[in-house]
Amino acid sequence: MSKELDAIMRPKSIAIVGATEREGSVGKEITQKLIKYGFKGDLYPVNPKSETIFSNKAYKSILDIPSNVDLAVIVIPSKLVPKVIDQCGEKGIKGVIIITAGFKEAGKDGAILEDEIVAKLKKYEIRAVGPNCLGVLNSEEDIKMNATFAEAIPMTGRTAFVSQSGALGAGFLNISKDVNVGISNFVSIGNKADINGEVLLDYWEDDKNVNLILLYLESILNPQNFRNLSSRISKKKPIIAVKSGRSSAGAKAASSHTGSLAGADLAADALLKQSGVIRANSMLEMFQMAQAFSNCSVPRGNRVAIMTNAGGPGIMATDALCEHGLEIADIQKETKYYLTSFLPEAASVNNPIDMIASAPVEHYKKTLKSLISDENVDIIISIYLPLMGLKPIDVAKAIMEIKEENPEKPILGVFMAEKEFFAELTHVDTNLPFYQYPEEAAFAISKLDYYRKWLAKPEGTKPNFKVDEEKAKSIIKNAVKKGRDQLTTLESIDVLDAYGVRTCKYAFANGVDEAVKKANKIGYPVVMKITSTKISHKTEVGGVIVGINSETELKEEYKGLIERLKERNLKDALDGVIIQEMVKGSREMVCGIATDPQYGPMMMFGLGGIYIETIKDVTFKINPLTDVDAKEMIESVKAYEILKGARGTKPAQMDQIQEIILRLSQLVSTFSFIDELDINPLKISEKTGEGIAVDGRIQVRMKEAKKALGIGSCGCGCKCSK
Amino acid sequence: MSKELDAIMRPKSIAIVGATEREGSVGKEITQKLIKYGFKGDLYPVNPKSETIFSNKAYKSILDIPSNVDLAVIVIPSKLVPKVIDQCGEKGIKGVIIITAGFKEAGKDGAILEDEIVAKLKKYEIRAVGPNCLGVLNSEEDIKMNATFAEAIPMTGRTAFVSQSGALGAGFLNISKDVNVGISNFVSIGNKADINGEVLLDYWEDDKNVNLILLYLESILNPQNFRNLSSRISKKKPIIAVKSGRSSAGAKAASSHTGSLAGADLAADALLKQSGVIRANSMLEMFQMAQAFSNCSVPRGNRVAIMTNAGGPGIMATDALCEHGLEIADIQKETKYYLTSFLPEAASVNNPIDMIASAPVEHYKKTLKSLISDENVDIIISIYLPLMGLKPIDVAKAIMEIKEENPEKPILGVFMAEKEFFAELTHVDTNLPFYQYPEEAAFAISKLDYYRKWLAKPEGTKPNFKVDEEKAKSIIKNAVKKGRDQLTTLESIDVLDAYGVRTCKYAFANGVDEAVKKANKIGYPVVMKITSTKISHKTEVGGVIVGINSETELKEEYKGLIERLKERNLKDALDGVIIQEMVKGSREMVCGIATDPQYGPMMMFGLGGIYIETIKDVTFKINPLTDVDAKEMIESVKAYEILKGARGTKPAQMDQIQEIILRLSQLVSTFSFIDELDINPLKISEKTGEGIAVDGRIQVRMKEAKKALGIGSCGCGCKCSK
Repeated sequence: MSKELDAIMRPKSIAIVGATEREGSVGKEITQKLIKYGFKGDLYPVNPKSETIFSNKAYKSILDIPSNVDLAVIVIPSKLVPKVIDQCGEKGIKGVIIITAGFKEAGKDGAILEDEIVAKLKKYEIRAVGPNCLGVLNSEEDIKMNATFAEAIPMTGRTAFVSQSGALGAGFLNISKDVNVGISNFVSIGNKADINGEVLLDYWEDDKNVNLILLYLESILNPQNFRNLSSRISKKKPIIAVKSGRSSAGAKAASSHTGSLAGADLAADALLKQSGVIRANSMLEMFQMAQAFSNCSVPRGNRVAIMTNAGGPGIMATDALCEHGLEIADIQKETKYYLTSFLPEAASVNNPIDMIASAPVEHYKKTLKSLISDENVDIIISIYLPLMGLKPIDVAKAIMEIKEENPEKPILGVFMAEKEFFAELTHVDTNLPFYQYPEEAAFAISKLDYYRKWLAKPEGTKPNFKVDEEKAKSIIKNAVKKGRDQLTTLESIDVLDAYGVRTCKYAFANGVDEAVKKANKIGYPVVMKITSTKISHKTEVGGVIVGINSETELKEEYKGLIERLKERNLKDALDGVIIQEMVKGSREMVCGIATDPQYGPMMMFGLGGIYIETIKDVTFKINPLTDVDAKEMIESVKAYEILKGARGTKPAQMDQIQEIILRLSQLVSTFSFIDELDINPLKISEKTGEGIAVDGRIQVRMKEAKKALGIGSCGCGCKCSK
Repeated sequence: MSKELDAIMRPKSIAIVGATEREGSVGKEITQKLIKYGFKGDLYPVNPKSETIFSNKAYKSILDIPSNVDLAVIVIPSKLVPKVIDQCGEKGIKGVIIITAGFKEAGKDGAILEDEIVAKLKKYEIRAVGPNCLGVLNSEEDIKMNATFAEAIPMTGRTAFVSQSGALGAGFLNISKDVNVGISNFVSIGNKADINGEVLLDYWEDDKNVNLILLYLESILNPQNFRNLSSRISKKKPIIAVKSGRSSAGAKAASSHTGSLAGADLAADALLKQSGVIRANSMLEMFQMAQAFSNCSVPRGNRVAIMTNAGGPGIMATDALCEHGLEIADIQKETKYYLTSFLPEAASVNNPIDMIASAPVEHYKKTLKSLISDENVDIIISIYLPLMGLKPIDVAKAIMEIKEENPEKPILGVFMAEKEFFAELTHVDTNLPFYQYPEEAAFAISKLDYYRKWLAKPEGTKPNFKVDEEKAKSIIKNAVKKGRDQLTTLESIDVLDAYGVRTCKYAFANGVDEAVKKANKIGYPVVMKITSTKISHKTEVGGVIVGINSETELKEEYKGLIERLKERNLKDALDGVIIQEMVKGSREMVCGIATDPQYGPMMMFGLGGIYIETIKDVTFKINPLTDVDAKEMIESVKAYEILKGARGTKPAQMDQIQEIILRLSQLVSTFSFIDELDINPLKISEKTGEGIAVDGRIQVRMKEAKKALGIGSCGCGCKCSK
């Protein structure tokens, strides 16, 4: 990518197509903004009806401009846009920003018009932002381009922001300067006819003027590409995203556990996490983080020192830090000794350090310096409550001076002061974040720490296990041929077995006599399960009987089963029973695959058994997984404590369980038409600590499966097996 | 209470003891504040060294003041305070505010001094705020008393605030006017030598000038009194509290499950909930709520309509509302029809109603009015992003005008505008809350809705069951006599049985032969459990064996048990075994009692079995409980879904489980020395749906138990049984 967007982001000359002085028009806004912001290149207003616009010579058309033009900003009625693109092509312009609305967002006709434009852009090899957008801003000293019609002019800095919503972008610019977040680049991408967030991520990857990237996303069109890009770039600079639409997406209606637990937002959340993108749940959170990330280096650890002139906020900071899992730093003895040398007797030199209400600026300075030198402290929160006539801005300036000299250790200010103080701050070149409440600082620190951990996280490897791919394929093929998108339990277990998942011993039996024969061979106690293509959740018909200890018991239970099916008119649904080795162990996990319509296959792991849907102690990750991912999944559920061997149980074989997750990952990577897969329960053997797949279900997407396996030709999902 | 605090809160005359013009002194600050704020009564500066102070005649001592004095504000060195109290007594003064520090908070000598003062206050029947406080403020028109040395002068309103931290109180006053929260009363209670938060709650109960009470608490000294007061007053006006010290308290070290799950903050949280106090986790949250509560009536329901001029924030509001469990209102057809009559085609008339970026003030007005008339809408969020040159303050004023005419339905403004707008707002008499982010509004609404539910919640009754109190008493007495603070399983089960808790059939057996005999009588399958006074968690030594199906199996298992105990050198710990009816059912709950050192006995209910400590799906309430409380407990855990009969299991008998919780409540109300009690598991019978206590442990506080049961006299906790 690199230079390709320069025509848009760093133009030397801009044509404003639709420039005008007409009051209340977007064309006027854009022209004025470009002029007033002080664009460093040449501006060419284009308007067939004017000689000059705001004292600049105007041109009848782009083609009349005597010099080269890098960028055209287009603010004319939508129907006229295609013709202008043609002219841009003729003129050799390489970038356009189409502010104009009335395209895809406006219905069918607009969509046709947009398609027409996209075709032309491709033809002329022109890159475009928009249509239907707020515009683009670059605050670099030698560019100074404000090609937006937003009201607010942001502060200059090194934060880049891309917004999928124009209005929200305007809201962002409104607030950004209030919280001292300086902007280098701002792009409202509108309908994303060409340039989307991913293109910009790529552009900003090595941009020295961008050290923090903020995204407002409503959708992620190409999740895999987003993941590849973000996970690479986030190792160089932090990426923070607000992803809205958490609720509206709703959970996908699915018959499996894995499926029903995997709502669309879970997928988005997993994707962002695996991409190293730090998620904000609101613009407020985004700003809180942006303030910290644009002013703080990545901390060396998570030990936080709090210094304050009031006890209450110190306690509040401690509460909030602990809730985020951060450590309250253990202040060094030497530091404490030094602090006692000048702080009054009533002060506390333990963390939180309470310098009490009378603390003058001098005490703030000395205390802060000593904490910067303290090797037990990674991060410092400095709290100030305006008391005793001491002006907050004076305290703030003193802290900033010290920070200037000691840029490495993150320092965060908490000033429970009036708005006037924060208003004053906007006129100051701040070098640390200032919050009004301790909880905001604690939240921001938790995200700095999250990013620290992300940077430290090993890449991991995607293992390639030796598996019996052919066997798995033939089992699935057989089911699909018969028109079944859902494999029987037996088939499912066999596929798992072919992929090296430890499954429990079993045998299929048709009728009670065969059941007895097989059970005698496997050895008691056994479990008996119905196998049926028509019954999905077996427990609901009492179709799973555990702890059968003898031949007599088996016969009785078989009889009972048949009766229960009769009662529900389901007798014909019985294909036979499976007699299974009874794995002793009270811990039941679940492990599986769900498919998100947009984000593709996701792996699940967590607490299984009857608790799965109510307790929801499960975690998801987007496939494919590395070994590090799989390990993280296991360790991230609460039930991990149970796996470790709580209260006298046998510790589970974590490596083996991790391998099961990875083998499933390999399975769905190979057979991408697998829609859902459940191992529930994955029972933890009390004897060996192994995870053993006791039950399994696999469901495929019929059309895709047929195509991939080369079955039939109609592809209509019917039961033909040509 | 009523009038007793009037001397402090509504004095007609104030003596300022320690009034001075000395720069940098608190005495000067207080005097000036009282004068400048315009106290409506008489002010008498008291200073032996001055003739006048700020043009007011000064008196050598209180006793020299010629007229009656209601209140003395004391700002003199701590050692001089006792003498002044004597003078107050002599003068007949009924209230004092002791600003002076250097008492209990300053160590031993200070504490002695404070005790001396308390004694004097009692003697003279003087009520006091402080010592070591920021002071008291009353903004009522005919009072106008600012007896604080805080920098900020708050806006006038009907919110009362009491702070346990002086500095934080100052911080509160700083910020309150920024967010348009008007204050009627402000009290910094300092060391609470006399007046504490509860006294003030009582005072404000029927105060017409107070319609919202805010508390900043670091501790609750008398939880039962706090609960009685708050649960009554919160039915009249909302009470919001920040309770800090959530983390520092730490979990109580306890041997039982119930105990270890009940951290101190859980107790505080339960207390606040049961008292109808709405908890804020930060000052920010408190302000967000205060803005809503001081401007909105209690909504009729939880259906929220969103109107906006930008799509993004509308989605964000929807996300946040859904996360809080609120409903997105289903706009009436007529409303939609009306909206389409004037909104542009590109607008959306579904909720969120997107009036698009071009929306003028007129559209805000019309849309808002139509939503106020819509009976499907209980609450309205009106979002505005400054666009197209329309001034936020103009939109805000238009909304406020309509609110003025329609005060009933709660309307919340979300203005993603610059600080300047909010600064402008502080000069306006607002009648609705204005937030900068949609999430803040959604949060505030969730709390309005919480309060609506609290008001609608039935009182409930505390049932009194017929139980065999004598039997329970004699079992406990027997154990205590033998010097045991922990009852055996057998004893525990018997106590539960005496209190009408359904326990499973069992028999005690000593040795294998007796075990066989008892098991044959109960009938197989049975469970065998060790009983021991020395082993706490039986599963850790494999001391619980389930599913014993025959005499042979029983004998084998007994042998194995003995071997395991031998291995651990615990053979001597075996008192015998219990042979128990085996209750079939896979659902295991837990039910119990924990004791918080400060808040007293708490009831617990939740998911039991091996998951209890890792999944922590449990809930706590402070004893005593009503039937409504017990029902709420059951319904508030995730496992409730499992109880209801998920996936083909038998629905549990909720009433019977509720009764168990209430019977335990009665047990601990009678035997208040019970420290901990666990029923784990409370197994849900697959056959009947009953909750059956399969295992139980009861632990008492020895000293208290001995005293209550009339055992021994040494009370030292030794094993004597005199």
